[in-house]
Amino acid sequence: MSAIRHFYTLADLEKVHIEGLLTQADWLRGHRTLEELRGRAVICLYLAPSLRTRVSMELAARQLGAYVVTLTPGHGVWKLAFDTGQPMRGAEAEHIIEAVGVLGRYGDLLAVRAFPERQSWERDAKDPVLRAVMEHSPVPVLNLESTRYHPCQAAADILTIRRDAAGEPQGPVVLTWTDHPKALPVAVPSSFAIGITRMGWDLVVTHPEGYELPADVLETCRRFAHESGSAFAVTHDRTQALRGARYVYAKSWGRLDRYGDEQREIAERRERGLERWIVDEQAMALTNEARFLHCLPVRAGVVVSEGVLRGPRSLVLEQAENRLHIQKAILMDLLSDG
Amino acid sequence: MSAIRHFYTLADLEKVHIEGLLTQADWLRGHRTLEELRGRAVICLYLAPSLRTRVSMELAARQLGAYVVTLTPGHGVWKLAFDTGQPMRGAEAEHIIEAVGVLGRYGDLLAVRAFPERQSWERDAKDPVLRAVMEHSPVPVLNLESTRYHPCQAAADILTIRRDAAGEPQGPVVLTWTDHPKALPVAVPSSFAIGITRMGWDLVVTHPEGYELPADVLETCRRFAHESGSAFAVTHDRTQALRGARYVYAKSWGRLDRYGDEQREIAERRERGLERWIVDEQAMALTNEARFLHCLPVRAGVVVSEGVLRGPRSLVLEQAENRLHIQKAILMDLLSDG
Amino acid sequence: MSAIRHFYTLADLEKVHIEGLLTQADWLRGHRTLEELRGRAVICLYLAPSLRTRVSMELAARQLGAYVVTLTPGHGVWKLAFDTGQPMRGAEAEHIIEAVGVLGRYGDLLAVRAFPERQSWERDAKDPVLRAVMEHSPVPVLNLESTRYHPCQAAADILTIRRDAAGEPQGPVVLTWTDHPKALPVAVPSSFAIGITRMGWDLVVTHPEGYELPADVLETCRRFAHESGSAFAVTHDRTQALRGARYVYAKSWGRLDRYGDEQREIAERRERGLERWIVDEQAMALTNEARFLHCLPVRAGVVVSEGVLRGPRSLVLEQAENRLHIQKAILMDLLSDG
Repeated sequence: MSAIRHFYTLADLEKVHIEGLLTQADWLRGHRTLEELRGRAVICLYLAPSLRTRVSMELAARQLGAYVVTLTPGHGVWKLAFDTGQPMRGAEAEHIIEAVGVLGRYGDLLAVRAFPERQSWERDAKDPVLRAVMEHSPVPVLNLESTRYHPCQAAADILTIRRDAAGEPQGPVVLTWTDHPKALPVAVPSSFAIGITRMGWDLVVTHPEGYELPADVLETCRRFAHESGSAFAVTHDRTQALRGARYVYAKSWGRLDRYGDEQREIAERRERGLERWIVDEQAMALTNEARFLHCLPVRAGVVVSEGVLRGPRSLVLEQAENRLHIQKAILMDLLSDG
Repeated sequence: MSAIRHFYTLADLEKVHIEGLLTQADWLRGHRTLEELRGRAVICLYLAPSLRTRVSMELAARQLGAYVVTLTPGHGVWKLAFDTGQPMRGAEAEHIIEAVGVLGRYGDLLAVRAFPERQSWERDAKDPVLRAVMEHSPVPVLNLESTRYHPCQAAADILTIRRDAAGEPQGPVVLTWTDHPKALPVAVPSSFAIGITRMGWDLVVTHPEGYELPADVLETCRRFAHESGSAFAVTHDRTQALRGARYVYAKSWGRLDRYGDEQREIAERRERGLERWIVDEQAMALTNEARFLHCLPVRAGVVVSEGVLRGPRSLVLEQAENRLHIQKAILMDLLSDG
Repeated sequence: MSAIRHFYTLADLEKVHIEGLLTQADWLRGHRTLEELRGRAVICLYLAPSLRTRVSMELAARQLGAYVVTLTPGHGVWKLAFDTGQPMRGAEAEHIIEAVGVLGRYGDLLAVRAFPERQSWERDAKDPVLRAVMEHSPVPVLNLESTRYHPCQAAADILTIRRDAAGEPQGPVVLTWTDHPKALPVAVPSSFAIGITRMGWDLVVTHPEGYELPADVLETCRRFAHESGSAFAVTHDRTQALRGARYVYAKSWGRLDRYGDEQREIAERRERGLERWIVDEQAMALTNEARFLHCLPVRAGVVVSEGVLRGPRSLVLEQAENRLHIQKAILMDLLSDG
């Protein structure tokens, strides 16, 4: 890894650093058009589809005076070679070393999204694309959601809670698994759990048996909770988890031990009746008037009831808006020494 | 429908309002680079392909100092759910309510293009996508061509005629159906007819039997003509329609009673010999030295002869250029109170 | 051809003109953010895929204060009609005459990339797309790589050598063919050979039998070498070519007499053992401590060894960066009278 500063996971940041970003984001909320990054070039590379990330990144960079170039290779795939030591005679026309080297000559920052292949967790767990980009980039790399982490979303979520609570949340934050017609990545729930514990806020994670988050993520959360003296718990008993909750964060993700076999996993969900994990009015009634959060896009009627999603306790649009503000703070942070 | 001001069809605007836009567009023609919308964000969502609309919208926004974000979802389709009251277990990952809610947090205006599905006129006639976007958007929505209307094109067409005539046209405007290898939407001819009658200019629509424009469009045109004391006529006799015409607007569209069965309709056109509806030198010779208009793209040798299309009486490039100027006027109008 | 000034091939430029561009590019290297082209609109049309060209063009235009609109029609193909005199009843919805006419109303410059169809060299040799765009465009056209030429790359290559040599190269430049799993276009090697001889620098082209560059390109190179009194040679003996070389430019291209039959050509390469044309440490050892150049993307282990590509004598990232600087100089040149 080079000495360049990257923004890969909130676990790399001290709490005081995160708090600085949050404070800066709140200030930027009221100061939309600036020239702080005038002349800087931000290159965004989407190796996976995106809607709100693309819009919020383009506006974040431009509203700070920077140039932004958005690259969205066709069909969500960009044929890049990652191995060395063998002739490039396959479908890949360019190696990551040259691709990143060139983009680093043009831009002052590379923002990259790369989703998991979902064939082998062993391989995806290494986050091969983001790791390779960070290794070879001569400029800072901003993770716009990788196989493992989505730090911009987590930072926006923390900003949303901090603003709603006017400081620390007065009561536990609950991250609850939900059903979904697909087996989704673990980047968002992993990053949320890491972010909340990093802040020293009490967190309960609840999910059905078999849906454990990656072991290294849980280990990190336990360490952060221990360091800050906060509570961190994992339970299969959602009813108990929700009692007294102040914030309910809903998210679906796939089982790691069924990785690459989505059909089997989804069939098992139906057999086990896991659609009951929907966050509806009944579930929210268990809480202490909790606020509802979700990173979007969301499937109404599956993940969350329409009433909760679009009701007065939902913060989903605030979360989305906060992506813009926090990304501006992150861009300023990464480009401040440049 | 919310109280937000949208730009959906010229039928919603008073004549004096349209005239204000035309005058502003003519002024903007000579004042290319401004800062009137500095800091504003325009989000363009193309759910259907586009070339000149995309270029003219991007430049219109930027030349006024605004940021513009262009979203062109892959394959011309963006899987959005529109129904409520049922679980989202299908292919649609996001509901229009959240999608528009989020974009409205990022942008000050949403510009949307959404073409008809062309399965059922009953459904398409309701303009479901644009209606849903307008219903849920917290910011103004600009229609960049929907199933029913293309108001920016109509406004550019009116601007072109007004500029060429140095005021009102001195003689009738003729909208003539033409042949085409496909069954095309009715948005452009509907909007042109509404716009011309809204201005109080004499209009003749001519087409073969069976190619009537939508009944509500004809009703609107009759009402506008009645209110302004101008003439509005529909005829199958193109020769008579063209006699004395000052402006000939060519456009092909599909039969509403063959909606969803393009193969049958095109076969019937061949049987009826409707290729004779081409606007060629012979047709133009019937007119009073009329100018030729078409919204582009156009099929030379089918819709219009090469000689007429590229000859000295053609205004097609002026129409295209005027899209830029009128869209700037519309953007300023919609964002002026913001 | 109209009287508009286009940038199509370096063969159209006097040496003193090229030198002016190089000097300007070196100055721009140190002056990144300017307002020289404020208010100008550059429209980039990519009828073929692109990565570094797109990024460098977008930044080049914006860093000079211009607006830039990037059009990347789906699937690398844009259905445009090129013929006249026959009805447009096929798949092409728009004719190049109208498409270019409209874009010329919106933009001050059209930058176009269009790759060969690779069916017939006789047809591709005429460079039909770029020729048609230049013929019909009312504004300057910048060639971003056509069937025949890639002048921006050649100008960046010359800039790279001139900067490395602090003037003229002290010893021969060698352009060497290499192997590749595909039959590639001749635009880059043709443009490089023309550019080097236009500068009056000694050039040796080396390739296996059957891989001659187009006859008109060789004729142009001979003429330029003759005019400037420099040496120009073509040989099948790579060992001899490399002896004493100061700059080695590697590039693969397809045989013109196998045009359209890639499968046969690639099979023949394997039979002839042409993979030995790789530029590796052994090949570089023959030179006079030569620098290595390639336009990228490059296949390591096929075109060039990893050690040479990523070693201290490689200039590939400088070449890529120089694309940005030279394109800024070209944009300023083309738009200076506008």
